[in-house]
Amino acid sequence: MIKKITATLGIAALTLGISHADEGMWTFDNIPSKQIKAKYGFEPSKQWLDNIRLSSVRFNDGGSGAFISSTGLVITNHHVASKQLQKMSSSENDYLKNGFYAKDQDKEAKCTDLELNVLVNMENVTDRIGKAVKGLPKTEAIKAQKAEIAAIEKENSKKTGLRSEIVSLYNGGEYWLYSYKQYRDVRLVMAPEKQIAFYGGSHDNFTYPRYDLDFAIFRVYENGKPLNSKNYIKFSDERPKEGELIFVSGHPGKTRRNITYSQYLFNRDFIYPANLYRYDKCLEALYAYADTSEEARRRSETLIFSYENGKKATTGEFKGLTDPTFSANFELKEKNFRNIIKDPEMKRTTEQAYENVNKVLKKYSKNYEQFYFGQLQGNRLPSIAMNIARYVKEIKKPDSERKNGFHDSQLDRFRYINLSKEPIYKDLEKVMLQTWLEMSLEKLGENDDAVKILLDGQTPGDRAEYLIRTTKLNDVSIREELLSGGLKACEASEDPLIMLALKMEPIVTQYEKWVQSEYESAMIPALEKIAETKFSIYGKNIYPDATFTLRMAYGPILRYDMNGTQAPPFTTFYGLYDRRYSFKNTEEPAWELPKTYLEKKNSLDLSVPLNFVYDADTIGGNSGSPVINTKGELLGINFDRNIEGLIRQFVYDGRYSRSIAVSSVAVIESLRNIYDAEKLADEIMR
Amino acid sequence: MIKKITATLGIAALTLGISHADEGMWTFDNIPSKQIKAKYGFEPSKQWLDNIRLSSVRFNDGGSGAFISSTGLVITNHHVASKQLQKMSSSENDYLKNGFYAKDQDKEAKCTDLELNVLVNMENVTDRIGKAVKGLPKTEAIKAQKAEIAAIEKENSKKTGLRSEIVSLYNGGEYWLYSYKQYRDVRLVMAPEKQIAFYGGSHDNFTYPRYDLDFAIFRVYENGKPLNSKNYIKFSDERPKEGELIFVSGHPGKTRRNITYSQYLFNRDFIYPANLYRYDKCLEALYAYADTSEEARRRSETLIFSYENGKKATTGEFKGLTDPTFSANFELKEKNFRNIIKDPEMKRTTEQAYENVNKVLKKYSKNYEQFYFGQLQGNRLPSIAMNIARYVKEIKKPDSERKNGFHDSQLDRFRYINLSKEPIYKDLEKVMLQTWLEMSLEKLGENDDAVKILLDGQTPGDRAEYLIRTTKLNDVSIREELLSGGLKACEASEDPLIMLALKMEPIVTQYEKWVQSEYESAMIPALEKIAETKFSIYGKNIYPDATFTLRMAYGPILRYDMNGTQAPPFTTFYGLYDRRYSFKNTEEPAWELPKTYLEKKNSLDLSVPLNFVYDADTIGGNSGSPVINTKGELLGINFDRNIEGLIRQFVYDGRYSRSIAVSSVAVIESLRNIYDAEKLADEIMR
Repeated sequence: MIKKITATLGIAALTLGISHADEGMWTFDNIPSKQIKAKYGFEPSKQWLDNIRLSSVRFNDGGSGAFISSTGLVITNHHVASKQLQKMSSSENDYLKNGFYAKDQDKEAKCTDLELNVLVNMENVTDRIGKAVKGLPKTEAIKAQKAEIAAIEKENSKKTGLRSEIVSLYNGGEYWLYSYKQYRDVRLVMAPEKQIAFYGGSHDNFTYPRYDLDFAIFRVYENGKPLNSKNYIKFSDERPKEGELIFVSGHPGKTRRNITYSQYLFNRDFIYPANLYRYDKCLEALYAYADTSEEARRRSETLIFSYENGKKATTGEFKGLTDPTFSANFELKEKNFRNIIKDPEMKRTTEQAYENVNKVLKKYSKNYEQFYFGQLQGNRLPSIAMNIARYVKEIKKPDSERKNGFHDSQLDRFRYINLSKEPIYKDLEKVMLQTWLEMSLEKLGENDDAVKILLDGQTPGDRAEYLIRTTKLNDVSIREELLSGGLKACEASEDPLIMLALKMEPIVTQYEKWVQSEYESAMIPALEKIAETKFSIYGKNIYPDATFTLRMAYGPILRYDMNGTQAPPFTTFYGLYDRRYSFKNTEEPAWELPKTYLEKKNSLDLSVPLNFVYDADTIGGNSGSPVINTKGELLGINFDRNIEGLIRQFVYDGRYSRSIAVSSVAVIESLRNIYDAEKLADEIMR
Repeated sequence: MIKKITATLGIAALTLGISHADEGMWTFDNIPSKQIKAKYGFEPSKQWLDNIRLSSVRFNDGGSGAFISSTGLVITNHHVASKQLQKMSSSENDYLKNGFYAKDQDKEAKCTDLELNVLVNMENVTDRIGKAVKGLPKTEAIKAQKAEIAAIEKENSKKTGLRSEIVSLYNGGEYWLYSYKQYRDVRLVMAPEKQIAFYGGSHDNFTYPRYDLDFAIFRVYENGKPLNSKNYIKFSDERPKEGELIFVSGHPGKTRRNITYSQYLFNRDFIYPANLYRYDKCLEALYAYADTSEEARRRSETLIFSYENGKKATTGEFKGLTDPTFSANFELKEKNFRNIIKDPEMKRTTEQAYENVNKVLKKYSKNYEQFYFGQLQGNRLPSIAMNIARYVKEIKKPDSERKNGFHDSQLDRFRYINLSKEPIYKDLEKVMLQTWLEMSLEKLGENDDAVKILLDGQTPGDRAEYLIRTTKLNDVSIREELLSGGLKACEASEDPLIMLALKMEPIVTQYEKWVQSEYESAMIPALEKIAETKFSIYGKNIYPDATFTLRMAYGPILRYDMNGTQAPPFTTFYGLYDRRYSFKNTEEPAWELPKTYLEKKNSLDLSVPLNFVYDADTIGGNSGSPVINTKGELLGINFDRNIEGLIRQFVYDGRYSRSIAVSSVAVIESLRNIYDAEKLADEIMR
């Protein structure tokens, strides 16, 4: 019997040191194998790890996945696939809503602009970057570092043909060159209905117990044929067991575990309130829009989801941030670290660094809202306009002096994103731009310089209506012309959004310059100093903050104390039907089931585990990550984390934090008994 | 669609006035029919109300129930019945664990000492009591009031043969004479297995979603024959619907909604910490005892439940008490009330009363632990010894001067309780007495006068062992001899527990005297003054605090915001099986199902609503209350309240507070398809 964990949340109860339960998102060069062996009696071999790394897939539009067959099949979450599903859909063929299944290979549908990456090589380049900046004054050092990073990436790209990225780990403690194999011919094989993939909708999002079949299956092609994928993670045919050790390999996007206490407070007092304000305003506008017609609902669906998702996560994190226990703990953890620094010179410089961080944040806090709201944003078209305006200016500079995002090695991706053929809906664009202009006006006032340019004397509604109606940027060929015509073509353009973007570009550049000279120039060295001290004390016994690069997390499948009782280690199909009938006599659609699930209920084994939870350290970006047992087989597909543990952005609390997966057995159960996809199930289980 | 309620808990969001959603436990003479009609379009008629009142049953060992047929059938909760079930059980026949069903009437099993009461008459006697105390000084007035109450009860008992009780409502704003028809020939007809009645055990207790068949069915006999019960509440054959208005008729035990803010703080700082300490110590001892053998587990089972139940409720209430929002709200509510008093004399005397309450509590706080822990307690035998010691002294006084509990009208009940033949287990008695002595020693120290007498130089373990081994009070005839032999017989007794009780009796009497002269004499008039002012301002627009007398609550069946999503209006049998399979591969027994439920799964309609929740104001004592639709039919049996609303002891917060019932349709579904009790189901549905 698993003993109940005491529910009292006292500061003393939180581990104050750095090692904590099975916390950690570890890089593949530094898997804590000894710790794992000591605790679980299992030691991952190099071969075992290599296979997992080479089977792991990054979805570049945000998410993770894995090869699951030698025939190029890749599994991820439905909600990771959803952007592609929407782009591939029309009002006649709504794959997002109705699902998709290609019975035969020639029916597999090519994705609009999906790019998958596999991390095939990792090289530590800390020394080379160190040499490039050695002896330089601060401002020069930052420039030189950027230049060296761009040079290494370019050089490696050219040499290997692989996508090359310098990854800064441990806040600059280490620099690595990651080389990715890129795949762009990716075709959709199977996706269930959104209603079952995202069962419970925004209500159940980030919660548990959960009953979601949040998966989708693609196939990677190379030279027009299914990829012969040597590395893949085989589906397990076993049900998950409580207490069982699992591994999660994926691409956690961002954590802030190693920030200073002053940064913690800056997040709490500035960053989070601004984001929450934005979520509320945008959702209000989107709900009103979606209510206007069924087609409007379809057009805004993924956007609404993404805002609701962001709002719920941000709200949960903000709740943690404002919890006196967590903030006291965060402060104490920092104090403890600062107290154990023994070397007097190291202590002096580190304390100085903390002091500098405080000072800079104080200054930055005065500009934060200006920089946040004094921009041209909205949904797609305003961003594209700004991207074009910045591109044509940056491209004239030598590569090493360009802003991040405009280096030669990044241009291919830049074009891929900004020239995407995804459908753009002007009515939705207008709503989002108007909302953005309203926020700018409300936060900065009509006399603000940026606001004056943004509105040009009109109301937000009129201005947005005018700009969106008259712009032609929805036409990809126009964008192409502007990009190839450069600054001249843009300056000659009478497209009102391009004209506005050109006017906003210097303002944004001015913000960036302030950030560079007043903020980054002091902040980066200070944070690097702190990181250096941490690194010199803890070394690689700690894991670096998440960077949307490949990491491994691990821990047991485990229930947790919830709401006065326990949340179970897994849920079953029984629970899916319980939730459906529990809300049945209302009009709430969140818990309705696709018809087939009602019709074919009797062919399902309702006791099959549907979702399960584990104490492993994941975060946004880990969506779609394979959940792997010690045999190296796929037990599930990670798709969410629980609301009790959202504070993990800043602190991982293993008592209540859980990640959530769809079980592999549930995927197979549904393929065989709901979707008539025996053929696909057989291919997967072969 | 039901709109999501904002989850932010701000002071401003809490209703600060006195009227609040569907809050309230209303006396049957004062049902807020106009409010109900205005909100729900349904006006309960006198006949409708009378039938409910005369069908409602009080279980005197703590709980409620209702007649459900003209043939004397009474339904309540399994956990209300459990005390009787345990008393009727032996190690061979464990009705509590295995359930019970009498297929034929002559198999119905007589309960050990169950007494049921029905409130047949209610009379307002405020004036008569007012007259009796008029013009008397405070201390005299209290005495005179007690005497008058005893007189009225005795007089009415004699005249009607009914159990007569004076009930003080509105903190002395009104006094009512309640007359109860008593039933003592009560026989068990059907009880399910404890495992399904209390599914999820202490884990799920006070939580929701829930999957409990917490019901038991008795039959009342009169003159050896089934009672011809004219008034009863017919089972509905309809499933509960969300939004539907329901009524709950039962006996809420105790609320503290009208206490002063200083009393709120006294609860938070003294009463609750002492109780929580006691629960923790007792449970620790009980767990160790239960682990010694299967029989020990059986013997301690209901006691453990009752402590776990108490601990969980107390912990939840304490969490609310220490929540800054609730305490700020409670303080503000009091301030607002004090501000609206316009009459200067009323204002002066009321403010004086608040001041007095503060002063008295300050004094009392210094004695609180002494009075709490400086007593002889434990489980059954120490209480019986104290009761006997007090009885033989009190009985010598004239009726009007006796302590409460020893008036002539109460003696019948006193004997019924203290001469009950329920089995007493000496090993368990020893454990509980030792724990009590350890607590007394720990809290008061070895030099305390009471502790010296309690321990008599021994360790708690040795002392408890000696006292329990040598006492003969487990023999009911010995108790009978002592009671009839009076003080003389007790003083001559060499029973060590009686000898100890006789020594402790003056100490306890001394505490009580202090409480009377220093606490009650100031507290009672002050609270009555405050209550009087409240009563003069609000009248009977407000409901009185709970007093374990018959009340009616009402409200809609309604989901609520829980843990980031929504808790459904009802659960289904699907969810029962989900929970079972969700915990399946562990040794945790809380969610195992009785075998029949696995064997007969396919004969159940799994979509039948099992439990449901509603926004109606109940509290401990309401267990077993009928939940009634507007047709006056039984939709369910109230059995719990959710953990989110435990603060309702002090504040009712309709956003999150829900009461929980077993649905009538689930009772019938299980009778017909699990228990082969078609005959009983037919009798109920006839």
